[in-house]
Parts: sequence; structure tokens; C-alpha cells
Amino acid sequence: MNLYDRLTLDIEQRIRDGVLRVGERLPSVRQACRSQHLSPSTVLKAYYQLESRGLIEARPKSGYFVRPRLRQPLPEPQLTHPVGHATELNVSDFIFEILESVKDPAIIPFGSSFASPHLYPLAKLGRYLAAAARHMDPLSTLTDLPPGNEELLRQITLRYLTSGVPVQPGEIVITSGAMEALNLCLQAVTRPGDLVAVESPTFYAGLQAIERLGLRVIEIPTHPREGVSLAALTDALRHHPVKACLLMLNFQNPLGALAPDDTRRALVELLRRHEVPLIEDDTYAELYFGKQAPLAAKSLDTSGLVLHVSSFSKSLAPGYRVGWVAAGRFAQKIQRLKISTSLATTIPVQIALADFLRHGAFDTHLRRLRSTLEVQETKMAAAIERHFPAGTRLARPRGGYFVWVELPPQADSLALHRMAQEHGISIAPGPIFSAKREYRNCIRLNFGHPWSDEYENAMATLGGMITGLA
Amino acid sequence: MNLYDRLTLDIEQRIRDGVLRVGERLPSVRQACRSQHLSPSTVLKAYYQLESRGLIEARPKSGYFVRPRLRQPLPEPQLTHPVGHATELNVSDFIFEILESVKDPAIIPFGSSFASPHLYPLAKLGRYLAAAARHMDPLSTLTDLPPGNEELLRQITLRYLTSGVPVQPGEIVITSGAMEALNLCLQAVTRPGDLVAVESPTFYAGLQAIERLGLRVIEIPTHPREGVSLAALTDALRHHPVKACLLMLNFQNPLGALAPDDTRRALVELLRRHEVPLIEDDTYAELYFGKQAPLAAKSLDTSGLVLHVSSFSKSLAPGYRVGWVAAGRFAQKIQRLKISTSLATTIPVQIALADFLRHGAFDTHLRRLRSTLEVQETKMAAAIERHFPAGTRLARPRGGYFVWVELPPQADSLALHRMAQEHGISIAPGPIFSAKREYRNCIRLNFGHPWSDEYENAMATLGGMITGLA
Repeated sequence: MNLYDRLTLDIEQRIRDGVLRVGERLPSVRQACRSQHLSPSTVLKAYYQLESRGLIEARPKSGYFVRPRLRQPLPEPQLTHPVGHATELNVSDFIFEILESVKDPAIIPFGSSFASPHLYPLAKLGRYLAAAARHMDPLSTLTDLPPGNEELLRQITLRYLTSGVPVQPGEIVITSGAMEALNLCLQAVTRPGDLVAVESPTFYAGLQAIERLGLRVIEIPTHPREGVSLAALTDALRHHPVKACLLMLNFQNPLGALAPDDTRRALVELLRRHEVPLIEDDTYAELYFGKQAPLAAKSLDTSGLVLHVSSFSKSLAPGYRVGWVAAGRFAQKIQRLKISTSLATTIPVQIALADFLRHGAFDTHLRRLRSTLEVQETKMAAAIERHFPAGTRLARPRGGYFVWVELPPQADSLALHRMAQEHGISIAPGPIFSAKREYRNCIRLNFGHPWSDEYENAMATLGGMITGLA
Repeated sequence: MNLYDRLTLDIEQRIRDGVLRVGERLPSVRQACRSQHLSPSTVLKAYYQLESRGLIEARPKSGYFVRPRLRQPLPEPQLTHPVGHATELNVSDFIFEILESVKDPAIIPFGSSFASPHLYPLAKLGRYLAAAARHMDPLSTLTDLPPGNEELLRQITLRYLTSGVPVQPGEIVITSGAMEALNLCLQAVTRPGDLVAVESPTFYAGLQAIERLGLRVIEIPTHPREGVSLAALTDALRHHPVKACLLMLNFQNPLGALAPDDTRRALVELLRRHEVPLIEDDTYAELYFGKQAPLAAKSLDTSGLVLHVSSFSKSLAPGYRVGWVAAGRFAQKIQRLKISTSLATTIPVQIALADFLRHGAFDTHLRRLRSTLEVQETKMAAAIERHFPAGTRLARPRGGYFVWVELPPQADSLALHRMAQEHGISIAPGPIFSAKREYRNCIRLNFGHPWSDEYENAMATLGGMITGLA
């Protein structure tokens, strides 16, 4: 993150926390330069940003002051209440329409599931892939069959160990992205007709995989900030033959929720008692804001029941299609399923990623990516507060690149989707995240793209449409 | 193929055909040089090869003579007669053991499903991949989502059109190898519990996929040279609710059978009448011996019921994991299944293959590969004839890199597998190619590796073991 974005964030945080109150004067540019060891232009850029977001105002010859807020920060949505129980799925064409729209760079990608590819070190990765491609030992086409390239497995294991997850040798299987890993996990722990518990709302691809495998789903109430409701999950385990849980504890898609540490502990213990496997989709874990990486439930697992799924697609290498699962007691089964599903994951790409992890400064890249996303989140949130009508609720995520917005009850996100599309703006309407097509007045917005005036205008356009619908 | 291998093949063919009879004198080296426009060393090398294989002998001061054959060429196995009908599958651990053994380069890979990676232009491909990796447009991570990279789709379409297969725009979906394509096809045309017709014997990976999807299988008698029995398939379609056929018409794995053109025509017409989709696994089609590429059943399809599956894994780029399906009327369904199974196939690798197809002299490589495999087939066949006991039957394939050997009835291929493994030799025992574990006295041998004295000795060792078991 550059210096002025960091200063902008700091001041914004102090305003939100009430340290700086409405009407109070900010330090003068000169004071700020001295106390923060910054250049005047850095301070001015930060003040200009804060002004453009409506947080402060310049008063001639007096300095910069905290502006009266037009309204309080938006309230959060509440714990969800999905209706009904076990559901057979029927995924609509609609999801594929939205996926299709992300291919067109002219469409504003608020509905996209991907962050901007420009946020990733694709040029540098390309150099590693170039080297791997040229120097690849032909025998690696055989030796790197599942579980995968040995050095890549070792590098992933090292990262687990560094972050306190005690994975066992032989537990990890490389897959063609997290999506394939999720599919293999579901197959490994269920049989057709089985019941799988998921958060509500949840990522549509998980629902699609569940549908495709002939499974049924039970949707668990979930809090937009704190994630899955353990009380509700406990109840579901007691009354229904739940055979597996598919959950995202870190920056859940679409809510952005982050489960508290206590919840994780209790969850792992609960599932151990019931002998129910947890498929932990942890694809966004590396994208945390702030200093502290979140815990994986996997780190608390002593029974081998947690299958921890992740990938490089969101953190490092979109388009390379390399993911993995640390599959606990299901590792051998997963390895065999992988072989009979797609045999292997592209070998030169596995080698390139192994080399990158060893030499490529992955953590430096990640720090930059996290800061960038954090700044973009504040811009997206500010735009929502500025442009969306009263009655809007917003859960501000602490990582990832999705924000979940609850619109006023009358606002129909499917109608909004159609109207927005005509203006070249995509959004992800709530119903695609639910087996029963709930969350009709909710949308998921993507802030994984560098903010621009065009985006600001698009948010104003959306706000106008929502006001009309509400 | 080099000149002396070609000459060796020609003379061997003439001996087999009876044009050159036992005891007849071959042309002198000088005559051969003149008539064939070859150098003396080329002719001498060819004669030396023929001598070392026991086909001719040098008589001092007289020249080279066709040797008395110890026995006639081995008879072919006959049409298979799989027992019973619809079968639920239970694939054994055994297949995975054999797969595991191919990772060890010290093991002689007669049981492998892969040809030697050294037969492929991996260094040249690496240069294309290096260029693709360095120059990749970040937006291609989005635009090349399924169906896939546009230029790669175009290049594949051009190859289809050149070989007389009228594929439609939008019909092709890029997959992570043929294995993923087969899985997607099976899902697209069946529901769990449905009945799928396959050849008997058939490739174990197809059986695994069928098992994994909760399908049942009906195994159709198949001729080791001419492929699936249409009479038997007609009967099966009449008496059983067959929902799909999964067949390999070109160099069927494991038999090596090549269906005659008339069979293909009748097959496509038969399935059209019954409205049963044909999943045509055509992975080995490019590896034909001789001048004439075989027909794809797809080229005869007018109803969109043929899903033509292929890949670059056997023909060009092992380890790159890029395959595809030309899916007829199922194209959209396959594209959606691909998205919810593994989202996309590695993007830089798609770009590299597209560039290679455009500039990389794929056909030059293929001609060389075909010749090499054809020579290796004659060496493998000669070794079988030399070392295996009477009662052995052999179907000589006209493409691919597998040969199917029927051992004397008492010889147990599973026992042979275990004994051979202790001597560092892998084989693929017959039962892994059958849902009911039939073909106990059959083995599949791989000739996709450059022949060597070590291989010749390994074949002698195998021959001794079989003689002991028979």
C-alpha cells in the first residue's frame, strides 16, 4: 500500500472509531508531515482522498475538518433465516449468464467472482513458468502424477507448518483449482442422496457441485460478520442425517464473514463428536486485512475429519488452475478420485509454482495485495454509503474481495441485475447464493478491482436504480 | 523413421506375407543398395536387425537367407465373450498399484498406460509455453474460461475440418485432458443408475469413471482386431435400457483393435435409430501406422449424438493435461459441467498449444512418432513370438502403443504380475480391463518406449515365467 492510502485509511479509521469527531480539525499539513515523517504531497493526497469521499472538508484559511456525516454508518444485516430444510437443487441458467458477462472487459465487474488479474504478478510468474517449461524433465510427466509435484507439495506443507497447521506427509493432493478439490472432497465423504450442510447464503459453485453429485443440501443460518450459526448447526446435526459440512470460515463468499476463533474451536469439536467431515473451503484466507492471519479450522483438527481446500487462484496465480486439499484421513481416497477424474494437474505449471514459492517472494506480493484490497474495500463501502438509499444494510468484511449488501426489502435484485446489465454493470443477485432462491433483496458486490471514477459513477447509477426499486 | 528401420520393416512384411519364403536368398547388399537407392551401411544395419530378430541368417560367402521360422506367426485371440450383463462396479486397489509403479523409472514399463515422454517434443513445447507465459494478457484469465482459448478452439476446429469431420462452431469444449472430458460426457448423457455399454475388455479408467458416477455397465463382445461386435451391441440395445455407449474405435485400449469403416457407418446409424449418444474416445487416433488416418465416427454423425473426445496427451504434450470434446448437441451442457467441475483448463498452457499448432510443425512430429511406434511394435511382437510359450495368441495392432496378448489358458496374469513386479517389470493384467475381472490369462503390454536389450531380456524373463505358469 502506498503511503497516502495508508494515511487515508488511518484517518478514516479514527473518524469511524470516534477518535476524531464531527467538526474537529485535522492536523495541519505541516503538523502531519512532521509527526508522520511524510512529504507534504503525500499528506495532501490523503486529505484530498478523504475530502472526495465526503469524510472531511477544507475550510478556507482554517484547515481540514471532519464533516458531519449525512447518516450513521450503515447497519449490518442480521443472522440469516433460510426457509425449509433438505433441498434438491435446481441451478438456474442465470448463474451462467453472469459468468459469461465477466468475459467482457467493457462490463463493470461488480458481479464477478474474480479479482482484477492486474493485481497478480502474472509477468513474474510467467518468467518462472517459462523456466519450468524449458527445463522440465520429461520424466516429471510421470513422477508428478497425483498426489503431485514433490517440491510443490513440500512448499505447501511448509506454509501450513509456518501458519501452525500440523499437516501430515502424504495428506496433500494437488488439484486443478479449488473447484476440483471441492468436487473430489464431496465425492470422498458422501454418496448420492446424502445431506450436506452449507452456510446460507453460500457460494453458488458449491451448490452446483452438490446438485451435480445428486446430493441434498441443508442451509444453516449464518451471520454476515461472524459466519455460520453454531446453534443452528448443532440443531441440524441433531435432527438430520448430515453427512458432511461444506463451510468457509474465512471471508465467506458471499457474506465476507469471518468466524471468531471460539466458533472454530467449538465447530471442530462438534463435528468430531458427530463424526461428520468438514470440507473447509479456505480459498480467501490469505486475503485478510490487518496484521493477523485467521486460523484454519484444520489447525484445530486432531481426528483427520477436516479436509482443508485452498488454491493459488485468488492469492497468486489466476488462470493457472492449481489448488489442493489437505485431506486428513481421506487423502488416499481423494488421490484416487483425482486420478480417475482428471488424472493429473498440468505438470509445468506445478513446477513453476513450486519454484515461485521457493524464490518468488510470495509473501511480499501478498502484503501488497492485501493492502490494495483493503483500500478498495473502503472505497466500495464509502460509495455504498453515499449512493444507496436509506434502509440499506452492509456487512463490512475484514478480508477477501466481496461485500454483501442488504437492500431495502422491496428492492428486487433480479430486476436490478437486468437493469444494471443494460447499463453495462454486472452485480451478483442474492438468489444465486441460495438453493431456495432467497435473498431477493440482497446483492454481492466485488471490490477486487482498482477503484476509478467509472466505478464511482456506476455505483451512483446502481444507487439510483435501487432507490427507484425500493 | 530412419532408412534402415524402414527397410527392416519392408523386408519383415514381405517375409510375413510370404513374398519372401523360408530358405530364399535376400538381395545382396550391393543389389539392395542399387534398387533401393540406399548406402551399404544402411542395408547392412537393416540386415543385422533382421538377423538379430531371428528372421534371416547370414551364410558365409553366400549371403542372407530367410530362416526357417520356429513356428507360424501367433494366432489372434478371438471375439471376447464377457459373462453376464449389467454390472455394478468395484474397482480394485490393484489398478492404483500399477499406476504407482509407472512413477519409478527403474521399473520396466510394459504395464504403463503412457508412452515414453522422450518421444514427445517437450523441449520445443517448452519454448512455446515460455513465450505464452511471458506474453500472456492478464485478461485471458477471464476470456479463456470455458469453452476455452479462442485460438486453440480454432486450431482444433481446423484439424477436424482437414480430416473431414464437420464440427460446428461452439461445439468444442477444452478440458483438463481426455479423462475429464470422458467424465463430463458421461455426466451429460446419463443419470446415476443408468446403463452404459462399453467394449470388453475396455480401459480401466472408463470403468472407474462409470463406477464413480453410480452408473452400471454392460460389456459388449469385442474382436481384438476389428473391435466392438455390432451384432452383440444391436442385441444389447434391443434388450437393455442402454443410455450411452463409451467406445474406442481406433486402436482400442487395451486390444489395439481398429474398427472397419463399414462398422463405423453401421454403428452411427444404429445409435441414431435408438437415439443413444456415442461417447467416442479417440485419444489414440493420431497414432496410426501406415499412410491412412482412420475415420472418426464423428465424421459420419448427422444427429449430434456423437461426443468426440480427444487430447494432446498421447499425441503431443504429455503432462500438459489439455484435452477436448466436440460434443454435438450436448455442447452447452458439457460447458456448464466443466465450469462447475474445475472451472477452467490452465490458461497459459492453452495459449502455448494454440501457438504450437499454428507454428510448431505438429504433423512433422506426428509422422516421426508414428514411425517410431510402428518400429517398436515389430520389436515387441518379435519378442513375444520368440519368448512366449506355444498357446500364446497375439493381435497385432495397426496403431497406438498397446498389444493384447492372450496367454495359454492356465497362465494367471495376476500371478504373473506379482512375479514380474519382483523382477522390476510391470505388466497390465487382463482383469483390470473388465468389470467382472475376466481375461485372467491375458495381459496388455506397452511398446511405447524405445526398444533396448534390457527390454528384450525382460521379455525373455516374462516368457520364462509364463511358461512356468502355463
